[in-house]
Amino acid sequence: MEKIAVWGFSWVPPFAQGLVRDLRVRWALEEAGLPYESRWVGIEERNTEAYRRKHPFGMVPVLESSEGTLIESGAIVYAIAEQCDKLMHPGLRIETLTWMFGALNTVEPPLWNLFVLDQLHQGEEWTKLRRAGAVEEVKLRLAALSEWLDDRDYLLGRFTAADILMTTALRFIRHTDLVAEFPLLDAYVKRCEARPAFRAALRDQMTDYVRNAPVAA
Amino acid sequence: MEKIAVWGFSWVPPFAQGLVRDLRVRWALEEAGLPYESRWVGIEERNTEAYRRKHPFGMVPVLESSEGTLIESGAIVYAIAEQCDKLMHPGLRIETLTWMFGALNTVEPPLWNLFVLDQLHQGEEWTKLRRAGAVEEVKLRLAALSEWLDDRDYLLGRFTAADILMTTALRFIRHTDLVAEFPLLDAYVKRCEARPAFRAALRDQMTDYVRNAPVAA
Repeated sequence: MEKIAVWGFSWVPPFAQGLVRDLRVRWALEEAGLPYESRWVGIEERNTEAYRRKHPFGMVPVLESSEGTLIESGAIVYAIAEQCDKLMHPGLRIETLTWMFGALNTVEPPLWNLFVLDQLHQGEEWTKLRRAGAVEEVKLRLAALSEWLDDRDYLLGRFTAADILMTTALRFIRHTDLVAEFPLLDAYVKRCEARPAFRAALRDQMTDYVRNAPVAA
Repeated sequence: MEKIAVWGFSWVPPFAQGLVRDLRVRWALEEAGLPYESRWVGIEERNTEAYRRKHPFGMVPVLESSEGTLIESGAIVYAIAEQCDKLMHPGLRIETLTWMFGALNTVEPPLWNLFVLDQLHQGEEWTKLRRAGAVEEVKLRLAALSEWLDDRDYLLGRFTAADILMTTALRFIRHTDLVAEFPLLDAYVKRCEARPAFRAALRDQMTDYVRNAPVAA
């Protein structure tokens, strides 16, 4: 890939900063040593016809390069990983993809559900009735994941693209103490977040939000 | 792949029959012309140590073959598609994977959310307060998907593995009229469900449930 541009939202409220999914793509590119430029779409512009031509669902991230346009954080990270043995060893392709789908389709849904409940619908009557059940569903997944990590520093023993998706999925419940209830999981997230590539990706996403912050009324 | 066995649940209640995710794997194997045997785990056995050795989250499907054990419906279908040009043309690999992640990480979550609300928590107080919002989120995704299918019979023009995941995701809200509100989407689902491979997969999943049905009390 050459001349890479990554689209994210120009600004999001603090509760979402560091969680928007372009972080996954930035992180993968940093791990792979591939330089890129940031592009921003305003949340209010996401459903314009012009932006919908890039992304049919009006979402981020979008990756543009000399090879074309890619959407879906899972697929973009996989495409980057195909060019970088550190992210996906050729002998571990299907295993890496398995845990990428595991992160996005098995672990993320209940965690995202709790994020939506606590952060997007805070204070609504239904959330008080539903929250305990939603937390139980999160704990079920975290307990199983923690057991898997019992004898592994990373999902596949060594760091792969799947850890990028899993770590960023687990970050959706950073506003709770649920991950901390599982010491192995807590250590896993901290291990992944300590990687220089993650820190660079997060710093650059946050810098863009500061640059694009709305002027206080 | 040789000597393939696919694990599903031995029996599920009627509202879930035809929706359990081993259907995706059965469908892909039928499209690829790969014979397989069915294996069953009881819902009550899913968290036993023996089954957890196959699947760390105690879920289905699991595919066992002479090449090893695979989990996660997305990854299993991808592995099958790699052996079958009809499911993934070599020139459309990343595009197919993009729409596979799109089906499971962008379209499925709000649909699954409505399924859970209507089918697993029916009658609970919070669902009455939450349902209208959950339906709106479903409609947003369906509208965007319908627009994408405006000039396409399948997600990528021709049938691919992504259509297997998208069709089975859309089936999670078969208890509603929401898909029927989008004629293009409705036609798309019917087009996919009319494929002989889908019908064979569904028939075999249902046959297993009949065979394993609990004796009436």
